[in-house]
Amino acid sequence: MKNTFGNSVSVTLFGESHGAQIGAVLDGLAPGIPVSEVYIAARLSRRRPSGAISTKRVEPDNFKIVSGVFNGFTTGTPLCILIPNENTKSGDYEATRALARPGHADYTAYCKYHGFEDYRGGGHFSGRLTAPLVAAGAVAMYALEQKGIRIGTHIARCAQIADRAFGDLERDLTFLQESQFAVLDPEAADKMRAAMKAAAEDGDSVGGVLETSVTGMPAGVGEPFFDSLESVLAHAMFSIPAVKGVEFGDGFALADGRGSQTNDSFAMQDDRIVTRTNHNGGINGGISNGMPILFRCAVKPTPSIYREQETVDFLQGRDRKILIKGRHDPAIVHRAVVVADCVTALVLCDMLTQRFGTDYLGPSRATSLEV
Amino acid sequence: MKNTFGNSVSVTLFGESHGAQIGAVLDGLAPGIPVSEVYIAARLSRRRPSGAISTKRVEPDNFKIVSGVFNGFTTGTPLCILIPNENTKSGDYEATRALARPGHADYTAYCKYHGFEDYRGGGHFSGRLTAPLVAAGAVAMYALEQKGIRIGTHIARCAQIADRAFGDLERDLTFLQESQFAVLDPEAADKMRAAMKAAAEDGDSVGGVLETSVTGMPAGVGEPFFDSLESVLAHAMFSIPAVKGVEFGDGFALADGRGSQTNDSFAMQDDRIVTRTNHNGGINGGISNGMPILFRCAVKPTPSIYREQETVDFLQGRDRKILIKGRHDPAIVHRAVVVADCVTALVLCDMLTQRFGTDYLGPSRATSLEV
Amino acid sequence: MKNTFGNSVSVTLFGESHGAQIGAVLDGLAPGIPVSEVYIAARLSRRRPSGAISTKRVEPDNFKIVSGVFNGFTTGTPLCILIPNENTKSGDYEATRALARPGHADYTAYCKYHGFEDYRGGGHFSGRLTAPLVAAGAVAMYALEQKGIRIGTHIARCAQIADRAFGDLERDLTFLQESQFAVLDPEAADKMRAAMKAAAEDGDSVGGVLETSVTGMPAGVGEPFFDSLESVLAHAMFSIPAVKGVEFGDGFALADGRGSQTNDSFAMQDDRIVTRTNHNGGINGGISNGMPILFRCAVKPTPSIYREQETVDFLQGRDRKILIKGRHDPAIVHRAVVVADCVTALVLCDMLTQRFGTDYLGPSRATSLEV
Amino acid sequence: MKNTFGNSVSVTLFGESHGAQIGAVLDGLAPGIPVSEVYIAARLSRRRPSGAISTKRVEPDNFKIVSGVFNGFTTGTPLCILIPNENTKSGDYEATRALARPGHADYTAYCKYHGFEDYRGGGHFSGRLTAPLVAAGAVAMYALEQKGIRIGTHIARCAQIADRAFGDLERDLTFLQESQFAVLDPEAADKMRAAMKAAAEDGDSVGGVLETSVTGMPAGVGEPFFDSLESVLAHAMFSIPAVKGVEFGDGFALADGRGSQTNDSFAMQDDRIVTRTNHNGGINGGISNGMPILFRCAVKPTPSIYREQETVDFLQGRDRKILIKGRHDPAIVHRAVVVADCVTALVLCDMLTQRFGTDYLGPSRATSLEV
Repeated sequence: MKNTFGNSVSVTLFGESHGAQIGAVLDGLAPGIPVSEVYIAARLSRRRPSGAISTKRVEPDNFKIVSGVFNGFTTGTPLCILIPNENTKSGDYEATRALARPGHADYTAYCKYHGFEDYRGGGHFSGRLTAPLVAAGAVAMYALEQKGIRIGTHIARCAQIADRAFGDLERDLTFLQESQFAVLDPEAADKMRAAMKAAAEDGDSVGGVLETSVTGMPAGVGEPFFDSLESVLAHAMFSIPAVKGVEFGDGFALADGRGSQTNDSFAMQDDRIVTRTNHNGGINGGISNGMPILFRCAVKPTPSIYREQETVDFLQGRDRKILIKGRHDPAIVHRAVVVADCVTALVLCDMLTQRFGTDYLGPSRATSLEV
Repeated sequence: MKNTFGNSVSVTLFGESHGAQIGAVLDGLAPGIPVSEVYIAARLSRRRPSGAISTKRVEPDNFKIVSGVFNGFTTGTPLCILIPNENTKSGDYEATRALARPGHADYTAYCKYHGFEDYRGGGHFSGRLTAPLVAAGAVAMYALEQKGIRIGTHIARCAQIADRAFGDLERDLTFLQESQFAVLDPEAADKMRAAMKAAAEDGDSVGGVLETSVTGMPAGVGEPFFDSLESVLAHAMFSIPAVKGVEFGDGFALADGRGSQTNDSFAMQDDRIVTRTNHNGGINGGISNGMPILFRCAVKPTPSIYREQETVDFLQGRDRKILIKGRHDPAIVHRAVVVADCVTALVLCDMLTQRFGTDYLGPSRATSLEV
Repeated sequence: MKNTFGNSVSVTLFGESHGAQIGAVLDGLAPGIPVSEVYIAARLSRRRPSGAISTKRVEPDNFKIVSGVFNGFTTGTPLCILIPNENTKSGDYEATRALARPGHADYTAYCKYHGFEDYRGGGHFSGRLTAPLVAAGAVAMYALEQKGIRIGTHIARCAQIADRAFGDLERDLTFLQESQFAVLDPEAADKMRAAMKAAAEDGDSVGGVLETSVTGMPAGVGEPFFDSLESVLAHAMFSIPAVKGVEFGDGFALADGRGSQTNDSFAMQDDRIVTRTNHNGGINGGISNGMPILFRCAVKPTPSIYREQETVDFLQGRDRKILIKGRHDPAIVHRAVVVADCVTALVLCDMLTQRFGTDYLGPSRATSLEV
Repeated sequence: MKNTFGNSVSVTLFGESHGAQIGAVLDGLAPGIPVSEVYIAARLSRRRPSGAISTKRVEPDNFKIVSGVFNGFTTGTPLCILIPNENTKSGDYEATRALARPGHADYTAYCKYHGFEDYRGGGHFSGRLTAPLVAAGAVAMYALEQKGIRIGTHIARCAQIADRAFGDLERDLTFLQESQFAVLDPEAADKMRAAMKAAAEDGDSVGGVLETSVTGMPAGVGEPFFDSLESVLAHAMFSIPAVKGVEFGDGFALADGRGSQTNDSFAMQDDRIVTRTNHNGGINGGISNGMPILFRCAVKPTPSIYREQETVDFLQGRDRKILIKGRHDPAIVHRAVVVADCVTALVLCDMLTQRFGTDYLGPSRATSLEV
């Protein structure tokens, strides 16, 4: 299966940047989970572009849940969320359809779909598709919160400017949930915004690194082969357009250390088993150990830049130059924060449901009988 | 599914470090692919420990193919490879079974399997399980070679010592195929070996970074969502024990650049469309673009070290100290090289078969009729 | 996965009988397949109730394709079809929500969804969900027709009245494609209609047997284990509400014969290998043999009848009587004909795409380059 | 995936009739389930041929569990069972390799595997492959018995001779578990045996109908789409060689009734909700309702008969005659009884684990902590 991900809880994605509607089907979530449209809207608004550091295409994201919710709760049957595309300017793309935009999927889409792909605005490859992913993921994230599992992502690095590391996680996650620009250190935030603006003024773009933390995750979730928690999370994160690297715990830095430095030793803490450090990001042998899950995703600079670039006309097979028009972001890393949160939530709902059964994320049975 | 991976071509893994036999079932490979036991043995021998920088447990890996091969060719039905465990010293592990070795899966295995897990030598979590993975992957790798698709991995970094970057890929891949210690720069190789030895003398261990390249990959393979080539490769690579990071092309370094630097511009070259640079590792929008696939995996230091470490007895729930005995590697990064190759081969066979059908990796029909 | 079916070509279903919209996502179909809304509408109209032998709830089925089609052809990315629910009378169901209608899923839905299920009109269990299944399947069926693969279903039996057997298949399939009441023998058709009417007048309902034939199917499609063509077709057919039996070729009658009668002997016919008889329904060892595929589905009588029935109130746990109101069919077997066709089409598109690759159902490459 | 079936609990099958070993990998079963080799051997012995009514190839089925069991309990990691092929006479098949045996998979195997298939004794298509399926299924069946879920199958019909219907289920299931010839009515059993012998004397073969019942199945298991309990059970049953029909409850007979006869009305019985009749075989809307599951499988006559048959040489493309040699059964329906039991057990373990989590089939947590 291609546009469907997950085993026990799955999400199916559809739509194109300039099509009539985009959407997602979320299936397998327990019955009885409250669905808050306000919460979903808040998540979508964090993905939405704003101001000088984002594309001028602003969509209201008037999502509509057309199935799977009844009287405010999930039914347990597929939940379909639709988002209309309202602010499309398709004319922008016609002239350059056979000019492969560097860093984009135009050429590979052509190799795969032989010219039948909807080439307007990136079609199905567009970052616009992350809107329904966020909407579906927001439902999952809300479900996890009812179970005390919290997810938060900050921009750990952007344009070579570093945010401070996660500290008091509960406080940081609370801060991030409210934040429109997910940077823990206000000074770093200002610098990042400035760097984004500077890139925009140069007709250029910047990338960044997202760092995600999950607290409250029960131990014992994940598989040794092949569905390690790292495997499944990475699989999902690499589906997010522009993600080119994923690392857990200290990740690539682990490779430079010695075992005596990178092993997380265990200790008893109030009758609970914990690790003294968390170099392994809460995962041993592919399975959660009860410590916070921690991972980072590398987001490449937005490939759409306002400079002339070398390329080819792939229909005529000759060298050409391209100057991209349209409305684009000088950076997407700040908009991808909530995508990382929501995709993480989808994966965790799936893994927890596999592990503990289809009722696990729902209300206790006692409650449900009274409904 | 847990220990089975792949859609059109799948591998199922079974066994424990100290069980009777370990093995893999490779299913869905085209009929008519020559199977070379010599080739498989050569790949297995590259995984096998040797000398001072590896564990003293040396297994002959007398693998046996018990199904799926007939008259030297794949039949198209499941191919099962068995490897007996011959050199096991199970007594080593009994005394410490409830002491969670830091960095290992003992505690998480207990959380998941409630004490029923085979705890001897890491059981099903053992790196030993990569032997059948290599054996199955070697069959896949040989199939790809018949189609002109070559895979090679070198140790790009180990103990903070860097190998040179890939250069002339065809030459480098040829060199790596023969090499027992997969480092391109002989001087770096010596330094890495020395660093491994030094770590061993300290009762410590080192990690490293593997870099894998694939040439000859056709364009148009992979999916926008959710089975991007990055997603599926990362999923598989993160199944390899000790891998904690995966990045494609320039990976995390992309996050620090600007779009004008990181975009790979297209050009015509002898009627073929190529990119002038390969910052994206041969993948745009989740789909191969015909350039070499390039990715790196971070391998953490071997968690087994010969020093006293803090830990807990998870059955009694109290703090303890542990001094690991048994036979272990001061580094596994050099042994993981061929694992990375073979796992890559499994993923590519799967993706190519999905894309082009179940006969694609087999002989041309004309040939097969004469058999 | 639950509401998603298929490997290489998959369909995801969502919606409830009285929800805002129902729909399906069809994913993995080759790019470049012409999509005819007229053809889809014609298939949907065959599913729609009409006259005295069907429910009085008539929906116009104003489907809308919101993604996956561009300039009249499939793009190769997910195709979402939406159908609004326009003619819902939800009030009918409120009073009896805890009274399990015999033969319906009310009680089992409660066991699974704990009272959170949308109980109006059967919710997600409603036969109404077959509308998007037909719409998606119609796209698949049209794709198969371009490849010379034709599917047709007739009512082989209804209310103990038998239709004649399939004869000249090409002619029969052509006849069935146009027919609103899919019975080959006009006399039998009249009797069946009369029996349906008689049952309706008694406040009762009847069932029937559907027989489906597929011509033009290439040999060599299907698997020995576990995805035999019978397995996958049966899996899909048993998803259709009210189907309680599936048999291939002579099916259960085979069990009463001897091998000398039931074996289909092979013969050469104009350089093609055929079988002289087709007791095995075109499938040997789970794999198509090039002869017409033939199978039958048993459809139970519509469980909604207008007579007082014994039941329980499952919330209060006591015996009750129920008299069903609402608008229902005295038979669904005639409406299920096109559902059987379309579900068959979905399965075959999936199996063919797995076998021959993702471009197989699309246009020849030469054609596509000119688009 | 092809030779792997199941989501949460899966089985992977490998081997050929005349290969070195055949086997199965059972994955996902809860840790802590007792594994009884005696129980497995007993199930295998019921599948083994015996006397005049079975093939003269008798295999001892010296199975060996090489992974996944530790100290007599499942570990929760993959359990691999191997069975050596000891009594193979491969010479029998060489001369006729291109002569398609009617009713067998020789020709379709050739269409799919292009001549690379192992043609000796049916290769991977052989009924011999049901031995590891039974061995793996026996582990699953034993696990279900610990939970009070019992499965039994009898030969409901053979050579047009009918067994009596199921009566007192618990007694009948107990009787069947011990029985070597699974017929409830001893007189019918004698007649069936006689009919099998008569067919053997004629060089012919007979088929039959298996009827399976499951008691103790909790309500609420299964899906409306597409993984209805009927769908998944039928998928699995149609993988068993020679099965050509599957029906649930009254099955095809339902099609001839009226709703007022076929609806199962509900009633309270000692605070439990039951149905007064069980025409629907314990399944409503694809989900178990707590009543016994009931279904029947049509098994066609063994295609190997000792009579001259018309066929083709598929390599030379011309008409030929064939007289099958080798060692074969005049009937397999009695040997398929335990296969039906065991495949049912595999499906139910999978569905229950999906529904209630990976610990469900294991011991209670309290018990497991003491291990």
